Amino acid sequence: MSREFGFHFEDRTTWVHIQDSFPLLHTIKEAFNQEGAVLLVCDTHTEAFAGAVLGRTAPEDTALCVLPPGETAKTWSSVEAIISAARGAGLGRDGLFIGLGGGVTGDLTAFAASVYMRGARLCLISTTLLGMVDASVGGKAGFDLLGIKNLAGSFYPAEHVYMPLEALSSLPGREWKSGLGELIKTAVLEEGETMFTLLKAMPAESFRRKPEQTGELIARSVEVKGHIVEADPRETGSGRALLNLGHTFAHALESAAGLGVLSHGEAVAWGLVRSCELGLALGITPPERARKIIRCVEDYGCETAAPHPLMSGDHNSTADYTETFFNALGGDKKRRGGKLTFIVPAAERAVSLGADAVPKQLLRDIIRGVRH
Amino acid sequence: MSREFGFHFEDRTTWVHIQDSFPLLHTIKEAFNQEGAVLLVCDTHTEAFAGAVLGRTAPEDTALCVLPPGETAKTWSSVEAIISAARGAGLGRDGLFIGLGGGVTGDLTAFAASVYMRGARLCLISTTLLGMVDASVGGKAGFDLLGIKNLAGSFYPAEHVYMPLEALSSLPGREWKSGLGELIKTAVLEEGETMFTLLKAMPAESFRRKPEQTGELIARSVEVKGHIVEADPRETGSGRALLNLGHTFAHALESAAGLGVLSHGEAVAWGLVRSCELGLALGITPPERARKIIRCVEDYGCETAAPHPLMSGDHNSTADYTETFFNALGGDKKRRGGKLTFIVPAAERAVSLGADAVPKQLLRDIIRGVRH
Repeated sequence: MSREFGFHFEDRTTWVHIQDSFPLLHTIKEAFNQEGAVLLVCDTHTEAFAGAVLGRTAPEDTALCVLPPGETAKTWSSVEAIISAARGAGLGRDGLFIGLGGGVTGDLTAFAASVYMRGARLCLISTTLLGMVDASVGGKAGFDLLGIKNLAGSFYPAEHVYMPLEALSSLPGREWKSGLGELIKTAVLEEGETMFTLLKAMPAESFRRKPEQTGELIARSVEVKGHIVEADPRETGSGRALLNLGHTFAHALESAAGLGVLSHGEAVAWGLVRSCELGLALGITPPERARKIIRCVEDYGCETAAPHPLMSGDHNSTADYTETFFNALGGDKKRRGGKLTFIVPAAERAVSLGADAVPKQLLRDIIRGVRH
Repeated sequence: MSREFGFHFEDRTTWVHIQDSFPLLHTIKEAFNQEGAVLLVCDTHTEAFAGAVLGRTAPEDTALCVLPPGETAKTWSSVEAIISAARGAGLGRDGLFIGLGGGVTGDLTAFAASVYMRGARLCLISTTLLGMVDASVGGKAGFDLLGIKNLAGSFYPAEHVYMPLEALSSLPGREWKSGLGELIKTAVLEEGETMFTLLKAMPAESFRRKPEQTGELIARSVEVKGHIVEADPRETGSGRALLNLGHTFAHALESAAGLGVLSHGEAVAWGLVRSCELGLALGITPPERARKIIRCVEDYGCETAAPHPLMSGDHNSTADYTETFFNALGGDKKRRGGKLTFIVPAAERAVSLGADAVPKQLLRDIIRGVRH
């Protein structure tokens, strides 16, 4: 399959190319009308794909930078490694950074490109479901600092984002789950039910076998997210904030569990269930809609139980656990500038609630798994 | 005196306040309509001014971050120190970063603010002549990396820039010289001769004694630079590049001498003389204009000789020196994206020349001090 979208984020345009195979370097350079030097950034996992992009003999003005894999590598030292490689390869302000990998590689490459000589050119090739449906479109770049996710970052949309479906054929099961969390979240934010219908027709095990349908689902998800970001690129209004549906709980869970222990999408799927429970208790989420969302999360084998099994084993008592979790929620509050908000599913799409509108006891109950 | 300018850099507005004394914190907070927490960043030199801003008892939600002084502190570790202090003080995305100091403190604070949670609020209080006439207005933020000036950076104009003239009364002589280099450069770029007339009426030793006239000169310089940046904020056209008059030679000198050995403005003054010699030799700079500019640099006691005394002592032969300097020019070439350019004074203002238009032998002669 082959699908193309153009999104306008402030004064920048991002072209998204969903296609069967990896783009070749010369195709990318043509798309960029690129004359300057090129740096391809990957991690030790996605290095295997570099050959598919570069061909057998990479041109002289193209260098490769290989990072360690995973969230724990999302640090300044990785950013510095990318910048150092770019400098070594002679990239100027017209140099092109290509990030080949999942969300972490993409966010790091985008951040490095955004600060290199105050802004070089950027292409992303997304190789994971999470990267395709979430990280690669929308311009958020950054890295973790002081134990806080994306504490340092920038807004820097790529000019071209490639999503080669063949990359997904070797994706580990857990990575599928991670992407599914964000996919289901985006389905809730869609006007209409196209994504839910596609999801229902796709049992978890069929994703790898049905690249065409997976591609359709990715395309629709990219379209929904892209339009939300177009309307509010820097999250100054309330539009883009809706994409944080499930994330207040998810960030707290990730932070309480330790960065990198849970994949982001798994945490989002779990947070989505908590958001449904919150919306139900407050009479905002219609029961049938909550059931539909939670069933979808369950069907894909994502964890729905509260307390999360990872957390409950770690603490002597439920009270300890609740306390840890509340502190983590507070961390998210600071992070977002003093305003702790919850996004909950509504009859259509979702709504944003200030923490003031949410009784603390209700939050405690939801975290502890007390049904309402 | 009191002067105010508003400049529009892309979608941001910078208000510049030239005034006799330091702004008080509550004045700044009013200007920002600030409710969130505040971080004041200074270095061990400008810490002495913090009291003038904060008053006797700083409010609880205001923290102080003191950096080591000078260009050698313009590193990622200083940026991280600022971000860490901001986090410790509970700043959110609505938090306000105030940079109190010269160009280095300003550039570091601005960069930290630009990446903190993908962009917090920014105020600069400029305490040096160089900071006032060059660094604080125009949005360039960044730090040195891999031995290269501002290799990592962002474009992030402050919302308010304060220039308290009283800060200049304790400025060391060398810092005056540094600011004068950029002042004279801006005078060359001015339409008309207001700045040259003001400069002529101000012997070097009278700056400290005549804050009113110094203020007028700063105001005019800020106005000239602000309008140039407004027309081409990100240096994508050729407009803003004119501000690099003298800088190709200056960067090469700074880099060959070692970062931090020469002040930026001293290097710019020296580079300005080289640019005049280049323009003269190519018939672009009228002799009378070149004489006027060079005399102005001399009058303020800035080094005009080629080879620069700092460089010539370091090398066994003139050939060695020339070679070192050429390599440094090449470094600047890479840095600017493959295009080595020279800005030279014209009959009015200045023009930009590609390196192709400049015979290599002529460059060698200018670097070695051979007259044409």
